[in-house]
Amino acid sequence: MITVALAKGALLKDSVDCFLSAGLDFSRVLDPDNRLLMVPSSCGRARALLVRNGDVPVYVAYGQAQLGVVGHDVLREHQMPVANLVDLEFGGCRMAVAVKESSNYQRAIDLPPHCRVASKFINCAREFFDEIDLPVELVHLTGSVELGPITGMAEAIVDLVATGRTLRDNGLIAIDDLFHSTARLIGHPLSLRLDEGDIHKIIEGVKQIKRDNLL
Amino acid sequence: MITVALAKGALLKDSVDCFLSAGLDFSRVLDPDNRLLMVPSSCGRARALLVRNGDVPVYVAYGQAQLGVVGHDVLREHQMPVANLVDLEFGGCRMAVAVKESSNYQRAIDLPPHCRVASKFINCAREFFDEIDLPVELVHLTGSVELGPITGMAEAIVDLVATGRTLRDNGLIAIDDLFHSTARLIGHPLSLRLDEGDIHKIIEGVKQIKRDNLL
Repeated sequence: MITVALAKGALLKDSVDCFLSAGLDFSRVLDPDNRLLMVPSSCGRARALLVRNGDVPVYVAYGQAQLGVVGHDVLREHQMPVANLVDLEFGGCRMAVAVKESSNYQRAIDLPPHCRVASKFINCAREFFDEIDLPVELVHLTGSVELGPITGMAEAIVDLVATGRTLRDNGLIAIDDLFHSTARLIGHPLSLRLDEGDIHKIIEGVKQIKRDNLL
Repeated sequence: MITVALAKGALLKDSVDCFLSAGLDFSRVLDPDNRLLMVPSSCGRARALLVRNGDVPVYVAYGQAQLGVVGHDVLREHQMPVANLVDLEFGGCRMAVAVKESSNYQRAIDLPPHCRVASKFINCAREFFDEIDLPVELVHLTGSVELGPITGMAEAIVDLVATGRTLRDNGLIAIDDLFHSTARLIGHPLSLRLDEGDIHKIIEGVKQIKRDNLL
């Protein structure tokens, strides 16, 4: 039985489509009435684990799921030992440094040394500010990071930006990009090595769809 | 202007009631159509920050909110420098060790050494297993921790249990309690010291309601 870890939220619909074209139908997870966290595929050959974004690489790293779909941002932040198999190209967004629109900062390097930066992505943020050699105090928040600059707690934030609407709604503006992120198909390294063909067939199916531009 | 950090979710309704009886009306945050994260009180003297559970002590520790309401579990887990002012006694739940009902473990100490334990509360779990001198491998999950034992990734979980329904629905059973948790009124230490009376009036109001058993 193949188990696939899927992230609840923005990537779910496209993740289901991706496996559907590769022969596995998990569309039941899209049913708003579904309360199951472990959902069998309609063919019964596989099952999906419906978990939070950050937990996808955990289930794949421990081999409880052989495959998973998750954003590159999560992989960068958590650095779990998983195989990065296919760039699925959907779920595009960028990890950006944002500040109040009314501030005068043009680039991240303009921020005052030792200022506070709020983020859910502490590791990505630390790496970026280390690279540009600017010492900052990172404040770890778990949600609504845009409140950091609004309340005056932080001078800047590091967060994912998709359409930019949340930033605009909160009077913030992106001034620097850390990296671009898209959804990735990931795999459990040992399962991939021991696979007798079933997992690779799914991976090839997903790659084929990508080549055919169906995603 | 007094700012109060309120946790979205299970504690919100009681938190609003608590401040209402102390003279601050934040009932607007309960409106399902409310999209604001910073909500003024109806009297205009104060405002509420609507944030995630784990972020309440962060805003209070940095002084962006002078007061906040959050579960004791979050305070135990994150150990931020905030003043623990009043046990509000609502939001009661316990931090428990749970295993599969079909397993033979009667107490946490029966778990096999070096087994995996999944939790959102890694620090609380580490402290507990250190105390009972049982070495375990902690797996940090951010949600749906009950999937840990179901998928076979973990032998046990450490999680909050309120009614016990989630455990039952997933074939799990609590075998040990770490501690009991209730909502707490917390404060920013420096703001409390510099306060000219406004903050203490609210704290006294909350204490009075508790004495009168109105909560």
